[in-house]
Amino acid sequence: MNWAARIAGCPVSALTDFSASINPLGTPHSVIEAIINSTSRLTAYPDPAYPELRSLLARHHAIAPEFILPGNGSAELLTWAGRELAQQKFTYLITPAFGDYFRALNAFGGQILACPLSLSGKGKSRFAPTPLPLCSSASSTSPSPYLPIPQNPHPQSGLLLNNPHNPTGKLWTKQELLPYLEHFDLVVIDEAFMDFLTPDREQSLIPMVREYPDLVILRSLTKFYSLPGLRIGYAIAHPDRLQRWQKWRDPWSVNVLAAAATTAALEDREFQQRTWNWLTQARSLLFQQLQAIPGLQSYESAANYLLVKTEKSATGLQEKLLRDYQIVIRDCLSFPELGDRYFRIAVRLPEENDRLVKAISFILQY
Amino acid sequence: MNWAARIAGCPVSALTDFSASINPLGTPHSVIEAIINSTSRLTAYPDPAYPELRSLLARHHAIAPEFILPGNGSAELLTWAGRELAQQKFTYLITPAFGDYFRALNAFGGQILACPLSLSGKGKSRFAPTPLPLCSSASSTSPSPYLPIPQNPHPQSGLLLNNPHNPTGKLWTKQELLPYLEHFDLVVIDEAFMDFLTPDREQSLIPMVREYPDLVILRSLTKFYSLPGLRIGYAIAHPDRLQRWQKWRDPWSVNVLAAAATTAALEDREFQQRTWNWLTQARSLLFQQLQAIPGLQSYESAANYLLVKTEKSATGLQEKLLRDYQIVIRDCLSFPELGDRYFRIAVRLPEENDRLVKAISFILQY
Repeated sequence: MNWAARIAGCPVSALTDFSASINPLGTPHSVIEAIINSTSRLTAYPDPAYPELRSLLARHHAIAPEFILPGNGSAELLTWAGRELAQQKFTYLITPAFGDYFRALNAFGGQILACPLSLSGKGKSRFAPTPLPLCSSASSTSPSPYLPIPQNPHPQSGLLLNNPHNPTGKLWTKQELLPYLEHFDLVVIDEAFMDFLTPDREQSLIPMVREYPDLVILRSLTKFYSLPGLRIGYAIAHPDRLQRWQKWRDPWSVNVLAAAATTAALEDREFQQRTWNWLTQARSLLFQQLQAIPGLQSYESAANYLLVKTEKSATGLQEKLLRDYQIVIRDCLSFPELGDRYFRIAVRLPEENDRLVKAISFILQY
Repeated sequence: MNWAARIAGCPVSALTDFSASINPLGTPHSVIEAIINSTSRLTAYPDPAYPELRSLLARHHAIAPEFILPGNGSAELLTWAGRELAQQKFTYLITPAFGDYFRALNAFGGQILACPLSLSGKGKSRFAPTPLPLCSSASSTSPSPYLPIPQNPHPQSGLLLNNPHNPTGKLWTKQELLPYLEHFDLVVIDEAFMDFLTPDREQSLIPMVREYPDLVILRSLTKFYSLPGLRIGYAIAHPDRLQRWQKWRDPWSVNVLAAAATTAALEDREFQQRTWNWLTQARSLLFQQLQAIPGLQSYESAANYLLVKTEKSATGLQEKLLRDYQIVIRDCLSFPELGDRYFRIAVRLPEENDRLVKAISFILQY
């Protein structure tokens, strides 16, 4: 954020950050308290088997503890998923894709096959994309037309995708994804934003890991519990695979404060409900407000961010928002397929979203 | 420690732990305070370049920041050192060796050549080892007879060692190590315990990284600042190498609380001096007390632990100490070269060391 503060001419703390997709309700008090109460435990090494942490996550997901491997953020576990994907002949990757996927695959010489997601609706102009259908209720198991992955991939291929997708917010249903578990030799699904969906709407493939030994789910506490600085995530996959990863990486990957924070976070039902309530309302309102601005098209999103297509330069908009409003949005230059006509914004608190909408309206008007 | 508590029949908190070589003065108050004051910063991602942290460590070691890469404990960085060592034809490893070295080398298929350290003095009986000479003042640059590494290794070979050595506490001088920088294609020196030596006695090779691009130094805050639960260490090496590692691993490897703790720790000169004062006196006294017990031989150590040879079973001693005194010592079964006739103990506070010595004397007497 130092670059943004320099342009805005203010301290980082004075910025309103719509660029990182972090829960604006902040870190739960219960979690901060658990961290502070655990500082006395810093003098001991964590148990490399993390028995309590794994049991807790196992109960949370109704799966056996052997299927869980906690990590130093899900990014650490992505490294080892990348190593295994790189052993396949190809890895299919839906683009635009999170930049760290390329890092993890390139680190081990993986061969990437990009599968571009269609961002414009059928028969519509390129500049007026139809919102992608969200959570379609199709009960068949045929692949979705909105999942640009071939049904018959090269033999010995892997698949890496996030669900919901970043940066579009697109959610694929379990039914849409299931056929790919049959056709790929390794499927890694990054569910970093799945906890933003209420239990009745989530589409996690976690229950399938028992049946599919070549399925890996990555989860994170970073976004929902506003903890990017603490580093805590976990993989859910077949025990044989996780034991192999455990032998590759160092034994004490998760710090004891992150482990304590996880316990407190998962038990904080009040915070979870409050987050779901906020997001449902705030996202819907923000989406409508953005659609009402001429020259902007927003995609429907299942996550806590919105991808927006703009007729004018996103970089120009970003700079004006910074200079005149100390507001940071995420340009999409790091997604080469998107370039300067898209930006991504986190859904924040209603009053912050209002301020953003007013600022964008004013800038685009002149 | 759960296994120990079970044998001792007491809670973990009631054990006196001589098995982990952690500073018994505990985590400095300044560090705990810095951690608590930084919990508000958990909502932001750390900057992957860690500019402040690297500048601070750079000043501390009088080297440029580009030569520094912080990590999630030095064990995380050992993983990447292991990957590069495994690309050599062989890695020479002084044994007995820290178990995690084998993990890091095996993770990438490294070929290990074990170089056993002689634990008995010349011409002395195997059961009455002479203490290894400590910090010899030889000014020549010829390899030490106590460093069991061939002067002419196989071409394309790497060398991995810790200095001071674990579990013996043996310290090699810069002069003893320098010739190996010429003969090996990659030298990784784990200096996890080097900060226990006062500035006038330390033998760090950090200043040599500018001259030797194939030298890697690993450092840790874990032992000296009693922070094994927080995970913070760093590598010092040529910038090209560190940039390569940075592309392999995830971008946010160091949590923000560990970064804040490092700042506070390095500035706490009072804690550093207090640790050096305690260790010099306590280690010397403990060494003498152990030597006075019939059937025990202790090795002189530059670190905060002592390796002790025993005529009776170390496992038996360990069990009696647990059952009757709630004291934990480290047996050396995980070092196959040592087996049941050695144990390792951390130097702790004088009154704790006294209690240990009395307990051992009593047990060995009967």
